[in-house]
Amino acid sequence: MTLALEKSRNNMTKLYVVGTGPGDIDLVAPKALAAVKASSDLVAYGLYLDLLGEVCDGKTHHDLPLGEEIGRARLALELAASGKTTALISSGDIGIYAMATLVFELLDQQLQGEGAPPRGEDDVHPEWLDVEIEVVPGISAMQAGAARVGAMLGHDFCTISLSDLLTPWETIEKRLHACGQGDFVVSFYNPRSKKRDWQINTARDILLQYRPASTPVLLGRQLTREDESITFTTLGELHSDNVDMFTMVSVGNSESRHIINGSKEWIYTPRGYKKKL
Amino acid sequence: MTLALEKSRNNMTKLYVVGTGPGDIDLVAPKALAAVKASSDLVAYGLYLDLLGEVCDGKTHHDLPLGEEIGRARLALELAASGKTTALISSGDIGIYAMATLVFELLDQQLQGEGAPPRGEDDVHPEWLDVEIEVVPGISAMQAGAARVGAMLGHDFCTISLSDLLTPWETIEKRLHACGQGDFVVSFYNPRSKKRDWQINTARDILLQYRPASTPVLLGRQLTREDESITFTTLGELHSDNVDMFTMVSVGNSESRHIINGSKEWIYTPRGYKKKL
Repeated sequence: MTLALEKSRNNMTKLYVVGTGPGDIDLVAPKALAAVKASSDLVAYGLYLDLLGEVCDGKTHHDLPLGEEIGRARLALELAASGKTTALISSGDIGIYAMATLVFELLDQQLQGEGAPPRGEDDVHPEWLDVEIEVVPGISAMQAGAARVGAMLGHDFCTISLSDLLTPWETIEKRLHACGQGDFVVSFYNPRSKKRDWQINTARDILLQYRPASTPVLLGRQLTREDESITFTTLGELHSDNVDMFTMVSVGNSESRHIINGSKEWIYTPRGYKKKL
Repeated sequence: MTLALEKSRNNMTKLYVVGTGPGDIDLVAPKALAAVKASSDLVAYGLYLDLLGEVCDGKTHHDLPLGEEIGRARLALELAASGKTTALISSGDIGIYAMATLVFELLDQQLQGEGAPPRGEDDVHPEWLDVEIEVVPGISAMQAGAARVGAMLGHDFCTISLSDLLTPWETIEKRLHACGQGDFVVSFYNPRSKKRDWQINTARDILLQYRPASTPVLLGRQLTREDESITFTTLGELHSDNVDMFTMVSVGNSESRHIINGSKEWIYTPRGYKKKL
């Protein structure tokens, strides 16, 4: 059975869940800016607000240490439920490996009455369920990178997070093999951190079982930001030494092409027009 | 060996390759609007320009029949090479199953001196290689759909085009199996057309080999536009009768959840915080 979504909203409290794109203010959707403007309280890393600039002036800014994602999502729901129009903000698309999913996981937990453990009998928040939630998508890093070098995502692609903090490595490894078997272009999110350095090399070795060492690879660091750097390399040459937590790593499929036109370089993934061209 | 991209540009002609998002003018990046403003000539379907509104006033609009993608990309390069600042425009992200890759494929062909066939000896265009190209990414339909229903793309996902006009069905089928094996959330682009109706049903049947019939599915038609409609269904119930060429079909992974909170419904794909919650 299918159900049409009722559009009616009858809540008095509002939480915007907002993605602000890769960094360049000119890639922030007007809808995202409007959501920030409409909010009195912002829950975000300080860096993201710096990128947004003066639209954040006069708002109450709530920050929490890196890694406190659950606390951040709870705080956003609490603020909104208390009547403060709130924006939970991340860079990129907040729906892609970011905070949006956690908000709905917390709601789901409340709906299931699972709120009690581990925070005790008092961790029941029916008021969260009355918050009107609106998610505003943003341009993700893979898109900024693909556009910066041409058209790397021109055909079927996938994304894989290489962080095994929340996902068992076995699952990640299974997806790397599936990516190889399916010959998907792939963008790696969370390719490394200070403590995690081997995953990207293992990912490379797995993909090398399926596609050539000459496969084009983009390393896009701080994409669209002032200190952006773009490196063209190959799957065979991909190494964690050249990757940090600010780097988007995208690997072409077996047909992706790295082309050089004078001082300009591009990577594109053909869709199959060749026979018609 | 890795190569740093030289940022210097020394061309006199400019082609913007611009994605304008799913439809809502408030999801168009300012950078995309600025590219349109800076152009004298626009190559696009009329519908896309209608969505953009008055920013297109006074521009020369070049349209070509549906299906004339190659002609469209050639025209954009020709206009730009002739000195007219040109914008090649599509909805969504022009780098994802859209025109951007074709522009670079045409350039690649010129670089390789493959321009002669099939259009004869005169089909050599060194002037295309002097065009400065800038690709502006946009929010893709899968992102608009995922945000509209919560956080469907919260964990690893892939995209598969179900059009076998340019891609052999064997390749598509291979990717459907890989998607199933990898348990990726998947968004289907080009799920059906007037002439193609069986592909989405076959895709469903393949995925059913890997994930339950109860897996949440989003049918998002005309996303973010005035006549948007959202349907929640399941993999088992997915059928081509309920899908047309304006429909975004996204299928959850085996952990995606469809939750109902009063009159509101959501789909989210958890990232794995559950053990911490």
